[in-house]
Amino acid sequence: MARTSLAARFEQSITLNALRAYIAEFISTFFFVFAVVGSTMSSRNLVPNAASDPTSLVAVAIANAFALASAVFLSANISGGHVNPAVTFGMAVGGHISVPTALFYWISQMIASVVACVLLKVIIIGQHIPTYTIAEEMTGFGASVMEGVVTFILVYTVYAAGDPRRGTFGAIGPLVIGLTAGANVLATGPFSGGSMNPACAFGSSVVAGTFKNQAAYWVGPLFGAALAGLLYDNVVFPAQPAVAAEGVGV
Amino acid sequence: MARTSLAARFEQSITLNALRAYIAEFISTFFFVFAVVGSTMSSRNLVPNAASDPTSLVAVAIANAFALASAVFLSANISGGHVNPAVTFGMAVGGHISVPTALFYWISQMIASVVACVLLKVIIIGQHIPTYTIAEEMTGFGASVMEGVVTFILVYTVYAAGDPRRGTFGAIGPLVIGLTAGANVLATGPFSGGSMNPACAFGSSVVAGTFKNQAAYWVGPLFGAALAGLLYDNVVFPAQPAVAAEGVGV
Amino acid sequence: MARTSLAARFEQSITLNALRAYIAEFISTFFFVFAVVGSTMSSRNLVPNAASDPTSLVAVAIANAFALASAVFLSANISGGHVNPAVTFGMAVGGHISVPTALFYWISQMIASVVACVLLKVIIIGQHIPTYTIAEEMTGFGASVMEGVVTFILVYTVYAAGDPRRGTFGAIGPLVIGLTAGANVLATGPFSGGSMNPACAFGSSVVAGTFKNQAAYWVGPLFGAALAGLLYDNVVFPAQPAVAAEGVGV
Amino acid sequence: MARTSLAARFEQSITLNALRAYIAEFISTFFFVFAVVGSTMSSRNLVPNAASDPTSLVAVAIANAFALASAVFLSANISGGHVNPAVTFGMAVGGHISVPTALFYWISQMIASVVACVLLKVIIIGQHIPTYTIAEEMTGFGASVMEGVVTFILVYTVYAAGDPRRGTFGAIGPLVIGLTAGANVLATGPFSGGSMNPACAFGSSVVAGTFKNQAAYWVGPLFGAALAGLLYDNVVFPAQPAVAAEGVGV
Repeated sequence: MARTSLAARFEQSITLNALRAYIAEFISTFFFVFAVVGSTMSSRNLVPNAASDPTSLVAVAIANAFALASAVFLSANISGGHVNPAVTFGMAVGGHISVPTALFYWISQMIASVVACVLLKVIIIGQHIPTYTIAEEMTGFGASVMEGVVTFILVYTVYAAGDPRRGTFGAIGPLVIGLTAGANVLATGPFSGGSMNPACAFGSSVVAGTFKNQAAYWVGPLFGAALAGLLYDNVVFPAQPAVAAEGVGV
Repeated sequence: MARTSLAARFEQSITLNALRAYIAEFISTFFFVFAVVGSTMSSRNLVPNAASDPTSLVAVAIANAFALASAVFLSANISGGHVNPAVTFGMAVGGHISVPTALFYWISQMIASVVACVLLKVIIIGQHIPTYTIAEEMTGFGASVMEGVVTFILVYTVYAAGDPRRGTFGAIGPLVIGLTAGANVLATGPFSGGSMNPACAFGSSVVAGTFKNQAAYWVGPLFGAALAGLLYDNVVFPAQPAVAAEGVGV
Repeated sequence: MARTSLAARFEQSITLNALRAYIAEFISTFFFVFAVVGSTMSSRNLVPNAASDPTSLVAVAIANAFALASAVFLSANISGGHVNPAVTFGMAVGGHISVPTALFYWISQMIASVVACVLLKVIIIGQHIPTYTIAEEMTGFGASVMEGVVTFILVYTVYAAGDPRRGTFGAIGPLVIGLTAGANVLATGPFSGGSMNPACAFGSSVVAGTFKNQAAYWVGPLFGAALAGLLYDNVVFPAQPAVAAEGVGV
Repeated sequence: MARTSLAARFEQSITLNALRAYIAEFISTFFFVFAVVGSTMSSRNLVPNAASDPTSLVAVAIANAFALASAVFLSANISGGHVNPAVTFGMAVGGHISVPTALFYWISQMIASVVACVLLKVIIIGQHIPTYTIAEEMTGFGASVMEGVVTFILVYTVYAAGDPRRGTFGAIGPLVIGLTAGANVLATGPFSGGSMNPACAFGSSVVAGTFKNQAAYWVGPLFGAALAGLLYDNVVFPAQPAVAAEGVGV
């Protein structure tokens, strides 16, 4: 499916609107990573070992939810509001974005994440950039599965939020995406880290200088994202007038 | 009322759209239970006895609110966004869903909850699945009444949120349902557990292997749900042009 | 202004729709008081002296915000979603509801609050119903002024949220009312209690059996509510085609 | 750009509608500052050194988010819902508000902030008004940059929220602005204070009687606000003929 769109939509990747979309992804991802990594650093600044402090979990989860909802809103009608390589991957698998465009999205998201982390490291003197860690009692595979599950839910939510058949419901789409992220962080934070976003994991690792367990934050999420896209489009809610009609009836 | 609709809508339970509705209920319930039980396990992982920690109460309440709002949004225009056997029961009592369809909804919700809890137990090594517990100073009957009251409010909110007569207000319907759940958890968490959802109580009990007080999480909620449905449809907001007109005036 | 509407709208107070409005106010106020008082009891159950615990403040504030948003949503297009005698008073002063109808609203709200508190006292064995208290360093007058200020903001928000000239903005009206309440509780909780709702203060006092400082939770709020109504209707946003046009343009 | 609009829109600054806009800005800013400064005082009242307590950070961040969302909603279709001199500056730079009108907005916001802080100081006996402080490990320049970054994000969000091209998304505009502020406070609170609002910093400093680091809360935010306005209008989402007209609506 992505193949066909590659030929069909290639020219989209080099238009002025496409460039604007890359800038929009950059700004939204920068904001999201700045808020998520920044809130983690805030907690660590206040509590000796924030990693084992429930209040810090709540703070980071709320920052995740609020920032993602806003970040998606900011770029929703310019770039589609991905703010996340896993989302872009899920959209590409579903054929909603061409592969070349998706690659440019990835590049924008990665650079934005690195820039946000560099800025935080420069401004906040004498504190390391925190990276996502896996609880000792967990296996790397288990963490990857957990990240995959929550990313599946997140991308599935993105598909639903961007579905025009939801009518007025769509108005709260960006907000719902943020709420999903917040709930997932509360559920997985102390175990797998609750990243759901390879760009965020990549940027913090680059600036922190350690890529330990990085694979767990790419393999699981990308797999979950692809599964979400295929499931939503082909099984749960395929394009059909019948379904749309039932949608109204609900 | 359900009887009449049973004959009228039986064929709905075996259509392709119905199957999609069951899958939608499965995914939404899986997400909700994963977030609620997962956030409880997160808190317990951070705090020795999270059951008596106010921050954990806030974390679980927020996870409840955020996850339910999203879960309802995800399946709202496919299955109606029940995500809860009590809601399905309340809708069946009100004649908004046929009994056979309701049974399939229940099955989907139950299986989803069990699957979510099994997944959490497998991924998170060496931690038990938490079940809803009743405060020592309370009686089982009191807990059941409390769960019934909050479930009444939740199902009443679902009825209101799904009411097309609310116009643009309806856009925030799924969000309001989540907010109601979050407020109820904050009010009842340390006393009756704040379940409001028999599927969530069932799944965690199955995986934990203990059905202590399980009845309290079924009797109260189902009774409250039925009362909410009948009260909303027949007393507070019966189908009438006059009422709709006044609604506009407000 | 209320006088003229008294003659003009008296018959509205005895219609079937009016009775439905009273029931709607009862249910919404019951839910709100149950959540607010219940969340306070939850915190006290977890923390020895929750009154001086910041997490309990957050929990109660969130319960306030979530419950009020939902409670207003539930009755918005039936009774106008007052859920608060101060709001009803402010609406009566502005001539948006007749005095007799307002009186019935008050009765419904008071009874609902008492019933909610009685239910909590009966279910939760061996814990007293908490009442709003004033910080030692504050004067009763200061607390009344503080309650008046936050109630002014709340009622002003209710006026804005119910203003049809806001177009699509109106969709989040009930939510915004809840957010205002939550912010106000965070700002005033440890000082004046952050009630903003005479019915909630009345119900808890009746069941707790103490009316200490009760006046502070009536005088300030009612004064603030009246001021908000007059200011919004006559100064900030009077009914004018010119203004309405600008409103649309915004 | 502001120059041309100065001549073109001067008369707007002395109309009755303009005066209403100034009153709306006053009320919204008063509410916002009352909630933000009040919630900080609440935390300090409960915790000895709230400045290093993560729960207080969450409480203040939530108060920021909830209060700003409501404050923007309240004045959105009267004054544009600035509630912040930096936002007004960013709008003036973008030519969406004339310089004279912007000056009157600033005056209203400043006075409102001072009044709110004076009121809090008078009501709450024996507690000082808290001012924004910079973490010891940070430089004043670093704090100013940090405030500039988060203000850039905030003003960029205001531009996006006021953009009619977002269709139904716009309904949650005021809410998204609040969420952005909340996330930013969680990320920067313990480091630069997370003000993003020169009026709030000014009012608390006036009443507290200390202007230490005041510059950091003006230079960075104003610079960030100007950059956000220019970037949104000219690069990310440039004005087509339709946009210029809708610019006024922002």
